[in-house]
Amino acid sequence: MEYPLLVFTTDFGLADSYVGVMKGVALGINPQARFIDLTHGIGPQDIGQGAFVLGVNYRHFPQNSIHVVVVDPDVGTSRWPVLISTPHGRFVGPDNGVLSRVLSDYLEDLPDTGEKANLPPGVSAVRLTNEAYWRHPVSDTFHGRDVFVPVAAHLSLGVPPTELGKPIDSLVWLPMLKPVVEPNGVSGQVIYKDVFGNLVSNIPAALLSGHTSVQVSIGGQTIEGLSRTFADTGSSSSAGLIALTGSHGYLEVAVPRGNAAAVLGIDTGDSVMVSFPDGC
Amino acid sequence: MEYPLLVFTTDFGLADSYVGVMKGVALGINPQARFIDLTHGIGPQDIGQGAFVLGVNYRHFPQNSIHVVVVDPDVGTSRWPVLISTPHGRFVGPDNGVLSRVLSDYLEDLPDTGEKANLPPGVSAVRLTNEAYWRHPVSDTFHGRDVFVPVAAHLSLGVPPTELGKPIDSLVWLPMLKPVVEPNGVSGQVIYKDVFGNLVSNIPAALLSGHTSVQVSIGGQTIEGLSRTFADTGSSSSAGLIALTGSHGYLEVAVPRGNAAAVLGIDTGDSVMVSFPDGC
Amino acid sequence: MEYPLLVFTTDFGLADSYVGVMKGVALGINPQARFIDLTHGIGPQDIGQGAFVLGVNYRHFPQNSIHVVVVDPDVGTSRWPVLISTPHGRFVGPDNGVLSRVLSDYLEDLPDTGEKANLPPGVSAVRLTNEAYWRHPVSDTFHGRDVFVPVAAHLSLGVPPTELGKPIDSLVWLPMLKPVVEPNGVSGQVIYKDVFGNLVSNIPAALLSGHTSVQVSIGGQTIEGLSRTFADTGSSSSAGLIALTGSHGYLEVAVPRGNAAAVLGIDTGDSVMVSFPDGC
Repeated sequence: MEYPLLVFTTDFGLADSYVGVMKGVALGINPQARFIDLTHGIGPQDIGQGAFVLGVNYRHFPQNSIHVVVVDPDVGTSRWPVLISTPHGRFVGPDNGVLSRVLSDYLEDLPDTGEKANLPPGVSAVRLTNEAYWRHPVSDTFHGRDVFVPVAAHLSLGVPPTELGKPIDSLVWLPMLKPVVEPNGVSGQVIYKDVFGNLVSNIPAALLSGHTSVQVSIGGQTIEGLSRTFADTGSSSSAGLIALTGSHGYLEVAVPRGNAAAVLGIDTGDSVMVSFPDGC
Repeated sequence: MEYPLLVFTTDFGLADSYVGVMKGVALGINPQARFIDLTHGIGPQDIGQGAFVLGVNYRHFPQNSIHVVVVDPDVGTSRWPVLISTPHGRFVGPDNGVLSRVLSDYLEDLPDTGEKANLPPGVSAVRLTNEAYWRHPVSDTFHGRDVFVPVAAHLSLGVPPTELGKPIDSLVWLPMLKPVVEPNGVSGQVIYKDVFGNLVSNIPAALLSGHTSVQVSIGGQTIEGLSRTFADTGSSSSAGLIALTGSHGYLEVAVPRGNAAAVLGIDTGDSVMVSFPDGC
Repeated sequence: MEYPLLVFTTDFGLADSYVGVMKGVALGINPQARFIDLTHGIGPQDIGQGAFVLGVNYRHFPQNSIHVVVVDPDVGTSRWPVLISTPHGRFVGPDNGVLSRVLSDYLEDLPDTGEKANLPPGVSAVRLTNEAYWRHPVSDTFHGRDVFVPVAAHLSLGVPPTELGKPIDSLVWLPMLKPVVEPNGVSGQVIYKDVFGNLVSNIPAALLSGHTSVQVSIGGQTIEGLSRTFADTGSSSSAGLIALTGSHGYLEVAVPRGNAAAVLGIDTGDSVMVSFPDGC
């Protein structure tokens, strides 16, 4: 029998021992635990980036995977540790909004800023209150090691969620930067910058499909048309930039065999504007 | 049956192929070998940092784990490869002091500078002399691949230590920077800086417990009081610094949602002073 | 039964989610797939460096390993995905020359620049054309996730190569920077720089063996003699440089407990000259 995978998404990086220690603790509970690192490269304490990266990628893992999500600047305070069970994966992490993007896949309407998200049908959650499944003594600064991973390891052994805590019916909601659809275009933002310097926006490919002419404005530059691949000349700009649908399913801006973030000198949070010059 | 884990602590980083190659070699010997990376982020050739990181973390791994420790600036010279067996883990690495912090857990008194450490009861060691268990040809520059990992892989298959080399009764000792307990305080040093910029000192939490007032001086700044979490305002300073017991069990200095190393402009080796202003 | 290992060589780095996603996809096809990362630290889109690092290291892995090689600047264009089967490993990747260094181990004569490499006896290849073994929808920018890894995962389950595509008899060839043997020396280049700042040249150790006097010129400095280890004073230079045969089997230039790349201020592609002053 194969146990469910433990899949990690954290801001711990790989230079320190935090990630290795979490795996050691998990193996002390389930000696046959198996791990995959989705990434430990979330920007330090960047809950929004963690929510995005987890949210656009969790479906690439087996449905019974247990995701351990640790972007947790308020560790040790009154924010609760939670476990969410969905049709595609279980998620253990802090109730600070980092799971909002996953949750949004199941919500008809997104909550407003300041509201909590009510759990939709098919999704359940427990507040992790049963300290019998934690590592002791529990530190105030490393719940990845002392709470989230022990709970995930016990879960991988078959301990039911209701044994781990108390059912809850809403979660902290992180307002997501949604693109704004305008009469003749879409206004969005750079939401992620990858190691190649490709700039991933929050504008989903679906908002561009069907348009015969597309113009992308970013960092003072204008890109005409869309490319299909990094080597395709379907789009053009004076700075060698191209625009295309990236592998995350969102509009990306890139420089073929180059680094768009360096060329433009911009970063996450900066504006991306799409317009449809022909009005269609 | 599960074989014992091979747990790596090295200064190889992850950009090069050294770590991958070691695992490939191990799998050629034990096709079912399993690996955990404690860290490959030890500073290049920094034996003291390797000793600290290994020493404060090895107990998070299963007791039968085999630790492969490669911080080895004198590879290929007269320093010996060794294997140490303790009640909590076996350790394969160079006899250059990198195992001192582990050994100190079993020593009543620490050796003086320049002395060797005599093995305490319950701890045994062999000098690795049986080249039949090495990879050939043996390079002069990569004993991780050619000596330590092959030995660890054979050990994971059940080869007894006495088959791998000759028993020895002392090891090279790395003097550890111990904090100095003074009449009204403790004088220590920054011993580790993590990816968040948190500054870990060599002052164990035990030296602070029971004191009702604590003042920490570091990098020209003074922090009043201790915090419990990164978000707790129990301590205060003009630079936004806090002091707290970190997850390693030592006094740490941090900036909530910030980077203390950057704020202070200091690094490992710099001084940390704790005083008890009320004398208690 | 153990399935063949999937061994990764890519330029994806570990900060993003690309590597984790590839493993998730593989586990969706073969839930018992096992992975080793040779490296994800190839310079972005540096096909030549990828070819070198893979070529000098693949023999450290079990013979039945399946290598997934993704350095693929022309992803989504007319370059073909291929699978090569050799006596020591199978290799899945783009047909852009990144497999040339592996192939060279089996070639009597290397092709000229601009030529393709004809497959030698014992080596076979297929162009991956059977999209039934790919992930759908297939993106135009991430064939690691959508083509190479799904094919490798199916291969690990025993799907025969002929089922995955059509046999071909030649591959794109990447001209390799071969050292030039001169009357009284060898002229080469720095081909790789590791995390310690050690400079690996393309001059194999075999070209130096038997010579009683060796002088190495690099970055305006001259190193007299060869060292055996990083701590050996067999070679000397005014800048503290040493020359030695590194663990890859090539001439390396290093600074003991220091960083040769930083001392010399040079990088890959720069010249390394070896001369034999005594003419022998």
